[in-house]
Amino acid sequence: MTRKMHFGLFLLGTGSHIAGWRVPGAVNTFEDIEAVRRIAATAERGLFDLIFMGDNLNADPAAHPSYTARLEPLTLLSAIAGATTHIGLGGTVSTTYSDPYTVARAFASLDHISGGRAVWNAVTTAAPAAAANFGTLHPDHSKRYEIAGEFLDVVKGLWDCWADDAIVANRETGLYIDPAKVKALDHEGEFFKVKGPLNISRAPQGHPIISQAGGSEPGQQLAARTADIVFAVVQDMAEAQAGYKSLKDRLPAFGRRPEDVTVLPGVMPVVGRTAQEAREKLAELMRFVDAKNALGMLSERFGTDMSAYDLDGPIPDLPEADTYKSFTGVMLAKAKREGGTLRDVYNMVAAARGHWVLVGSAEEVADTLQLWFESGAADGFNVMPPYFPGAFDDFVDLVIPILQQRGLFRTEYEGPTLRHLLGLERPANPNF
Amino acid sequence: MTRKMHFGLFLLGTGSHIAGWRVPGAVNTFEDIEAVRRIAATAERGLFDLIFMGDNLNADPAAHPSYTARLEPLTLLSAIAGATTHIGLGGTVSTTYSDPYTVARAFASLDHISGGRAVWNAVTTAAPAAAANFGTLHPDHSKRYEIAGEFLDVVKGLWDCWADDAIVANRETGLYIDPAKVKALDHEGEFFKVKGPLNISRAPQGHPIISQAGGSEPGQQLAARTADIVFAVVQDMAEAQAGYKSLKDRLPAFGRRPEDVTVLPGVMPVVGRTAQEAREKLAELMRFVDAKNALGMLSERFGTDMSAYDLDGPIPDLPEADTYKSFTGVMLAKAKREGGTLRDVYNMVAAARGHWVLVGSAEEVADTLQLWFESGAADGFNVMPPYFPGAFDDFVDLVIPILQQRGLFRTEYEGPTLRHLLGLERPANPNF
Ligand SMILES: Cc1cc2nc3c(=O)[nH]c(=O)nc-3n(C[C@H](O)[C@H](O)[C@H](O)COP(=O)(O)O)c2cc1C
Ligand SMILES: Cc1cc2nc3c(=O)[nH]c(=O)nc-3n(C[C@H](O)[C@H](O)[C@H](O)COP(=O)(O)O)c2cc1C
Repeated sequence: MTRKMHFGLFLLGTGSHIAGWRVPGAVNTFEDIEAVRRIAATAERGLFDLIFMGDNLNADPAAHPSYTARLEPLTLLSAIAGATTHIGLGGTVSTTYSDPYTVARAFASLDHISGGRAVWNAVTTAAPAAAANFGTLHPDHSKRYEIAGEFLDVVKGLWDCWADDAIVANRETGLYIDPAKVKALDHEGEFFKVKGPLNISRAPQGHPIISQAGGSEPGQQLAARTADIVFAVVQDMAEAQAGYKSLKDRLPAFGRRPEDVTVLPGVMPVVGRTAQEAREKLAELMRFVDAKNALGMLSERFGTDMSAYDLDGPIPDLPEADTYKSFTGVMLAKAKREGGTLRDVYNMVAAARGHWVLVGSAEEVADTLQLWFESGAADGFNVMPPYFPGAFDDFVDLVIPILQQRGLFRTEYEGPTLRHLLGLERPANPNF
Repeated sequence: MTRKMHFGLFLLGTGSHIAGWRVPGAVNTFEDIEAVRRIAATAERGLFDLIFMGDNLNADPAAHPSYTARLEPLTLLSAIAGATTHIGLGGTVSTTYSDPYTVARAFASLDHISGGRAVWNAVTTAAPAAAANFGTLHPDHSKRYEIAGEFLDVVKGLWDCWADDAIVANRETGLYIDPAKVKALDHEGEFFKVKGPLNISRAPQGHPIISQAGGSEPGQQLAARTADIVFAVVQDMAEAQAGYKSLKDRLPAFGRRPEDVTVLPGVMPVVGRTAQEAREKLAELMRFVDAKNALGMLSERFGTDMSAYDLDGPIPDLPEADTYKSFTGVMLAKAKREGGTLRDVYNMVAAARGHWVLVGSAEEVADTLQLWFESGAADGFNVMPPYFPGAFDDFVDLVIPILQQRGLFRTEYEGPTLRHLLGLERPANPNF
């Protein structure tokens, strides 16, 4: 079987471009479940592997007002499970501001409800403002990742408390559960004490899929040990290749093979019928950018007030961010490489919140994606349309068919669960 | 407008009778979303006000094996929101093992997704075994209610952080949120510190509906202060009248009117075409009871190992339960009143987990419900079918039409949100 691309859709209802919602006809709310259902249907028409929803645990209208008010990921995904049939349903939940019993249970429940399509995007939560909503202090970067590591172990352990055949439900004998097939977890670690067993039977996928988006050293280590999908932040191909190799090289140490992890760099495609038209679309989007919002988001990314710096002077020496190491590192590197200014970083944030923007005709976009895919830079892409529905329709209707014609992408879904789409085995249960 | 009955459906997938799942053809899993969708459709066909799902935060196969493995309430309710149009969607979430920011957000999200049909059943969690899954100790009964009171205040406060018209989303000006219309909460109490604002806009219902099921003194006080719906545990009409009056009498002290709270005693209806057939149905159900399961549930209800007591001796002096004061008190009172033994309590638990069992022809069942409704014992009922779908179909198809003919129950839904069905105003927002 030849290697095929994988596609995730980054579901930000108002679009990934900071001002995408201002485009006439664009979805301009992130709280309308019908709009989300239509977007999910388009993604499924495009045979995407998954849709994936980020999350924030605080409301900061300054950062990006159009997604300050949003539906909660698990209720949103569950609501669209019944309106879709094959696509993976990914939701972000924090390991810093949740507890593992609740998280293990919720994703197992979504996996049952969707027939094996749940994805947990495990994040450590970068924004320190979340802490004040939970009556606590924000742990520092390395502590957040220590907590995350144990959290993931507990969740995976809870997913294995029930043998696949634990529920007998024999009407004749009255035996409902085979008691030998349910085990407690009895976890006692540094951060969590969790007895178990979980109060839901084993998930259709065995374990729901884990995705991870941390780009720092501990983030990469955690991903290499625990994740099935890795979302990467990139700005050029050489960097993507280096990140891809770095992640894949870590896998053998954890007894894993390169194909066990699907690496999806984020890309904001701006597709036109011609290259010229695409560039005009991006220019129009940039004209909508509101300086205050963009500066707010820049400050949020760097975890420091950026309005103090001269946008058009040389790039200042900034304190290392404790927040989004991946975004800040990648954007600064690109700006320095190209002799740019802070304004270029600002523009990267305004365009795609720091992700790679790919502008061109459908052929050009397909060419570049193919090049990356065949050059060890990606196993596929996390598509971040600047706005919905138009910009996403363009990608699905214009770019996907070209990739299919070239034999690079599926022409039908391979099976009912997300594991089938990703080519991953259902994990055996070590307890039974 | 004449006063009308309200109906909730207690959604226990395998039925409320401990052995209901053993009936041939009965649903025998609580993890099949399609089965739940069909049940919800029947409830909506019966014009019920709401379906309502209990919850447990631990898996105790001894207590009632058929619902030890269950879907998580919020994902379940969200999944059926799209398959229903008017019925309220009630889910149990604990104030002892959750945090208010997450809970406020999740129910606001469900309210948006369902167009104003979310109900939070706020419980303090009776089963001490939950604590071990959250690395903590189970607070005692009165502490649980102190926490619950503050928890509810925080949640309601978070629901008022956004003015109804805070989102402007003006494409021309670029203003997305009117900053004057979003306020922090800045709560600092004994148990919680929560800054806010919530990261979701105000819910369609303003506040999702609150239900409450605690029967103890602090439980009743909390309900009188905060709840829109009260689920009661009853075994006879005099007791139901006393409980009803006690709850309604508490309301003026909180500036509330009697009609602000809908009191729904739980009832397990066993309906036959004749009284004789109904009695046979119950007898068949009781033959399926497994003594070990029933004793396990009895012990769970009383929070103590009941296998030490002689079921057929006089009713022993039991230590006061720290768990389910409502259930234990009501069942013991009934058994003593009728000169019964512990076996009668055991049978009450086995039949409907301590709730009232009403057996008869459709006419008889309708007569009794009408009598209670007109005698100050109930505003309606929380229907707990012994099994699905048959026993619930019987109620919807045989009893509901009689109540409609008598003008006691709606013949069509009154409006889109649950507040319309309950006759409750949308709460004003005190902040704006
Ligand atoms: C595609 C993508 C989506 C992300 N979504 C979220 C999110 O929803 N919530 C969040 O707190 N962090 C999110 N992040 C940030 C990372 O998961 C991570 O928390 C952050 O980058 C800090 O970790 P790091 O220093 O290891 O990169 C996302 C990152 C990427 C690349
Ligand atoms: C209809 C009904 C449903 C209930 N559902 C739950 C539940 O799902 N989870 C739970 O922990 N307690 C549940 N309870 C128990 C009560 O909410 C309450 O926690 C318990 O009775 C202890 O409080 P009390 O001593 O005030 O009665 C339920 C009670 C009733 C009457």
